[in-house]
Amino acid sequence: MTAIGIVMNKDKHNAWLVAEALVRLLEGKKAGVYIDHVVAAHIGRQDLSLPLEQFHEKVDIVFVLGGDGTLIGLAREIAPYSIPILGINLGHLGFLSESEPDDLPRAVDRILSGEYCVEERMMLQTEVFRNGERVHQSVALNDVGIAKGSFGRMIKCSVYVDDLYVGTYNGDGLIISTPTGSTAYSLSAGGPIVVPYINVILLTPVAPHSLTARPLVLPANEEIHVVVDATHNDIGLTIDGQLGYPLKINDEIVICRSPYITPLIKWKERSFFEVVRKKLQRENG
Amino acid sequence: MTAIGIVMNKDKHNAWLVAEALVRLLEGKKAGVYIDHVVAAHIGRQDLSLPLEQFHEKVDIVFVLGGDGTLIGLAREIAPYSIPILGINLGHLGFLSESEPDDLPRAVDRILSGEYCVEERMMLQTEVFRNGERVHQSVALNDVGIAKGSFGRMIKCSVYVDDLYVGTYNGDGLIISTPTGSTAYSLSAGGPIVVPYINVILLTPVAPHSLTARPLVLPANEEIHVVVDATHNDIGLTIDGQLGYPLKINDEIVICRSPYITPLIKWKERSFFEVVRKKLQRENG
Amino acid sequence: MTAIGIVMNKDKHNAWLVAEALVRLLEGKKAGVYIDHVVAAHIGRQDLSLPLEQFHEKVDIVFVLGGDGTLIGLAREIAPYSIPILGINLGHLGFLSESEPDDLPRAVDRILSGEYCVEERMMLQTEVFRNGERVHQSVALNDVGIAKGSFGRMIKCSVYVDDLYVGTYNGDGLIISTPTGSTAYSLSAGGPIVVPYINVILLTPVAPHSLTARPLVLPANEEIHVVVDATHNDIGLTIDGQLGYPLKINDEIVICRSPYITPLIKWKERSFFEVVRKKLQRENG
Amino acid sequence: MTAIGIVMNKDKHNAWLVAEALVRLLEGKKAGVYIDHVVAAHIGRQDLSLPLEQFHEKVDIVFVLGGDGTLIGLAREIAPYSIPILGINLGHLGFLSESEPDDLPRAVDRILSGEYCVEERMMLQTEVFRNGERVHQSVALNDVGIAKGSFGRMIKCSVYVDDLYVGTYNGDGLIISTPTGSTAYSLSAGGPIVVPYINVILLTPVAPHSLTARPLVLPANEEIHVVVDATHNDIGLTIDGQLGYPLKINDEIVICRSPYITPLIKWKERSFFEVVRKKLQRENG
Repeated sequence: MTAIGIVMNKDKHNAWLVAEALVRLLEGKKAGVYIDHVVAAHIGRQDLSLPLEQFHEKVDIVFVLGGDGTLIGLAREIAPYSIPILGINLGHLGFLSESEPDDLPRAVDRILSGEYCVEERMMLQTEVFRNGERVHQSVALNDVGIAKGSFGRMIKCSVYVDDLYVGTYNGDGLIISTPTGSTAYSLSAGGPIVVPYINVILLTPVAPHSLTARPLVLPANEEIHVVVDATHNDIGLTIDGQLGYPLKINDEIVICRSPYITPLIKWKERSFFEVVRKKLQRENG
Repeated sequence: MTAIGIVMNKDKHNAWLVAEALVRLLEGKKAGVYIDHVVAAHIGRQDLSLPLEQFHEKVDIVFVLGGDGTLIGLAREIAPYSIPILGINLGHLGFLSESEPDDLPRAVDRILSGEYCVEERMMLQTEVFRNGERVHQSVALNDVGIAKGSFGRMIKCSVYVDDLYVGTYNGDGLIISTPTGSTAYSLSAGGPIVVPYINVILLTPVAPHSLTARPLVLPANEEIHVVVDATHNDIGLTIDGQLGYPLKINDEIVICRSPYITPLIKWKERSFFEVVRKKLQRENG
Repeated sequence: MTAIGIVMNKDKHNAWLVAEALVRLLEGKKAGVYIDHVVAAHIGRQDLSLPLEQFHEKVDIVFVLGGDGTLIGLAREIAPYSIPILGINLGHLGFLSESEPDDLPRAVDRILSGEYCVEERMMLQTEVFRNGERVHQSVALNDVGIAKGSFGRMIKCSVYVDDLYVGTYNGDGLIISTPTGSTAYSLSAGGPIVVPYINVILLTPVAPHSLTARPLVLPANEEIHVVVDATHNDIGLTIDGQLGYPLKINDEIVICRSPYITPLIKWKERSFFEVVRKKLQRENG
Repeated sequence: MTAIGIVMNKDKHNAWLVAEALVRLLEGKKAGVYIDHVVAAHIGRQDLSLPLEQFHEKVDIVFVLGGDGTLIGLAREIAPYSIPILGINLGHLGFLSESEPDDLPRAVDRILSGEYCVEERMMLQTEVFRNGERVHQSVALNDVGIAKGSFGRMIKCSVYVDDLYVGTYNGDGLIISTPTGSTAYSLSAGGPIVVPYINVILLTPVAPHSLTARPLVLPANEEIHVVVDATHNDIGLTIDGQLGYPLKINDEIVICRSPYITPLIKWKERSFFEVVRKKLQRENG
C-alpha cells in the first residue's frame, strides 16, 4: 500500500478544501495518508497528523498543495530523504507543479497505479566560511543569490572554479543556479534556459558593471568559491529566494552540487519545453 | 578676475598634492581661489577656506579633484546655483571628468581665457509621499534607484507617467535615469546609451520577472509616479547610488525633471562618443 | 463633407467584406468615398476608384484595412501629403492600427464628427551615396536596416553623427529606427522602447561582435552617416523591413529626420503604454 | 620521432616567415616535418610537401599558423582523423590558438617532449533534408547558423529536440553552437559562455521577434530538428560562419553531436577562464 504525505501552503485561498478532497480521494482508494501536522490541525484530521521531520519514516510520496515556492521549500526540508514530490498547483501556473486541483482524481489514480516518471533534479550545497570557520550551510533547489542591499553600492564577487580564477564580478550580485533554477531569478538577470536533466551549474551576474560579464555555464562536478568584497556590510545570501543569511566582507562562499536530489513526479505526456512555452507565455500575457 | 573654487575627494591617493599644485597655478595666474574648508585644512591653506554652502556667493567655476562620484556628489550639493564644474580625474577614467592632473596647467589656462564649453546636464527631482505627506525630497544627476534589499523578495513597482498607467514591474527594482546616468547603473541593467543633450528620462527595470519588461525612453517633461508594493519593508531609494532613503510599502515616489541643471565644463575637441568609446573599452579591458 | 479614402491589404482574409461594409457605412453617412483603384476593382466599386497617387487631391482621411505592415507601406507612399491615417486592424493586434472591424460603425462616427486625435509620427529619410553619386533615396516610418546576407560574414559599419565619429559596429548589421520603430525590429535586437512623441533616433546594433556595442539614443535633428565595410558584397539596405536595396562596400548611407511625418489617427482613451502592454503580452502569449 | 604537419593562412602578414622559422626549428630538433602542399610551394620547401588529405597517414600533430578562423577551417577538414592541433596565433588574440610566434622555440620543445594537454572539443554534425532526400552534410567546430538574407523578412524556425516540440523562433535566425562556439557568434546574439569540457549544445535565437525566446542549453546527446519557414527563399545555412549552403522553405535541418572531435593542444598553465578574460577584454579594449 502506497503511503501518501500531504503538505500545503495554508495561505493559498481554498487550499484546505483541496486538502480535504485529496484526503477523501486517498482514503477511498485505501491509500495510507499522513498529513503535515500543521495542516492536519487546520483541516481537523489530527488522526492523520505527522511531523514533517518524520515523513521519511512512513511516506512514499508527498503531495504538495501550493505553488512552486511551496514545493521548493518542501524540497529543501526533505532533501536528505529522496521522497518523490507531486506538486498540485494552487494559483498561477508553475514550472514544477504537475497537477491542477481539478485533475486530483486522475492524479491519485496515476500515483497509486505507478503511472508516472520521477525526474531527479540536482540541488546545490552552500557553505559560508568566515575567518576559517563554517558559519552557514544549506541546500537549494533553484538558486543561491549573493546580493547587495537596497542602499549598498556595488559588491565585488571574485569567483574561482576548482581553484581556477574565473573573474571578479562588480555589480548588484551573483546568482548561482541549478538547471531547475534557470527559469527563475537567473532568467530575469539574462541567463539562458537549461533543460533540467543536464548536470551543469549556471553563474549569472546581476546588473554587472562590466558589459563583458556574461552568464557562464559550468560543470556540476566542480566547486565554486566566491569571495565577497564591498565598502559596506549590507550583503546578503539568499537560498531559493526564500531564506536569507547576512554576509560580511571577505566571507568565502563555497557552492557545489549537493549529494541530495529532489525527485519530482512528472506525467509522461508533458515535456519540459511545453511547460516553459506555456509558463513564459502566461507570465507575460 | 575669475574666482575658482576647489573641492576634492580626500580619500583619493595624492589628491592633496594635486590640490596644492592647482592652488599654486591659480595664484600664479592671479585668479581668485576658494577652497572647500575641509580641504583647506587638509592642505594647510585655511586662508583660502570657504564653506561649500557659500561657494555660490564668490565662486565662478569649481574644480573638483576626484572621480565621477565626487563630481556627482558636488553637483547635487550646489545644484541650485548653476556653478560650472570642471572635473579633474584622479584614478580611473571617468565619463564626467574632463581633465587629468597632468593637464592642469593647460586646463587652468583654458578656464581663465574662456576656452571651454558648458554642457547643461539635466537633473531629476525626487519626492516621496507617505500617507499623503512628503517625507523625502532630493535631486540627482545620474539616477534614482528603487531596490529590494539583499534578503527581500521581488518588489512590485507600478509606474504612471502623467497619470497614464505604464505597467507594473516585478523584480529587483527600477532605475529612473537622466541621459547622464545612462552610462552608469542603467547600462548595467540593460539600458541604452543616451547622448547627454537630449531631454529624456530612462526607465530601466532591474532583473525584471517578466521578459517583456524592457527599458523605456520617456520625455523629460512628464512626471513619473511609482507606487511600491512588496511582502516586506526591505526597500530602499538611492540617489545617484550615493544617498539612501528607506521606503515602505505603498510609498509613492514622484520623479520629474529638476528645475536645476548641472553645468559641466567640456573642451571642444572631445565628443561624448569619444568619451564613451574610451571609457567602455578601459572598463572592460 | 469629409472625404474618406480606402486602402486595403487584399491578401488578408475577408478584407474585401470589411471594405464593402465600410463603403456602405460611409455612403450611409453621406461621406465622400474614394477607393484605391486596385481595391475598387476587387470589390466591384470602380465608380469610387481613385489611384493612390491622386489621394492627396481629394481625400481628407485614409482608412487602411490590414495590419501594421499595410499601414506602414501606405505611410511611405503618401508621406509627402500629410493625410491622416486610421488603421483598421485585420488579423493580429498591431501597434499602429487603432480600430477593429467590429468597431467600424463607431470609428466612422468618430471620424466624421471629429472626435479623434492626430499623432504626428516622425519619419526617416535615407540616401545612399556611391562614388559621390546618390544612388538611392527613400523614406521610412519604422526603421532602416543595414544587414549582411545569409552567407556573408560580419559587416563593419562605421557611424558618424554630425561628423563626429561614434564607433565601428562589427556584426550582423545596424538598425536606425524612429520611436515608432522602437517596438519593431530594434526591440528584437535589444533596443529600448521609446514613446512615439519624443524626437529621437535609435541606433541598435544587431548581434554585435563587441559586447560594449549598445543601443544608442540620438537626437532627431542630427545626421547619421554610416560607411559599410565587409569582405564581400552581400549587404542589403532595408526600409521598414519591406523594401530592399543592395549595398556595396564603401557605400555611404546618410540617414536623418524626414521633412515628412505620418499623421496617425488615435482615440483619446487609449494610451501608447496600453497598446504596448497588450501587444507585447499578446505576442508572447 | 614526432611528425609535425604545418598549415598556414597565407593571407596573414609574415605568415611565411613564421612558417620558415618553424621548419628550421623542427628540423634542428630532428622532428619529421610535413607541409601542406600549398604552403610548401609558398615557402620553397616542396621537398616537405604533403596534401592535407594525406596528413593523417604521416602526421602526429599539426601546427596551424593563423587565427582562430584558420584553425577552425582546418579542424573541419581533418575532423575524421583526430590529429591534435596547436594554433600559433598570427594577429589578434584568439580563443583557440595557444601560442604566439615569439614562443615558437618553447612550443616546439614542449610538443616534442610531450609537455602538453589535449582538450577534446565536441563538434556538430549537420544534415539538410529536402523532400526526403539528404542534400547537405557537414561538420562544425563552432556553430551552425540558419539565417535570413539581407533583404528577406523574418524567418520561422520550428525546433524539435528528440521529437519533442521546443518552439518556433521568428526572427533573423538561429545559432546552434558547441561550447567552443559559445564565445563566438552565439555570444553576440546574447548566449551564455559555456566551459568547453561540458557536453551541451546551445540554441541561441538571433533578434527574435518574441521577447520570451531565450538562449537554451540542451544535452549534447539529443538530436535537434529545425524546420524552416519564410515567405521567401533567401535563407542560408552557415557552418562556422565560413561555409554557406542555400536553404529552401520546408527544409529540415538535423543537427547532432558529431562522432568526430577536435583535439586541441593546450598548455597546462592557462585556464579557459584566463583566455576568456583576456580575449573579451582585448576585443572590447
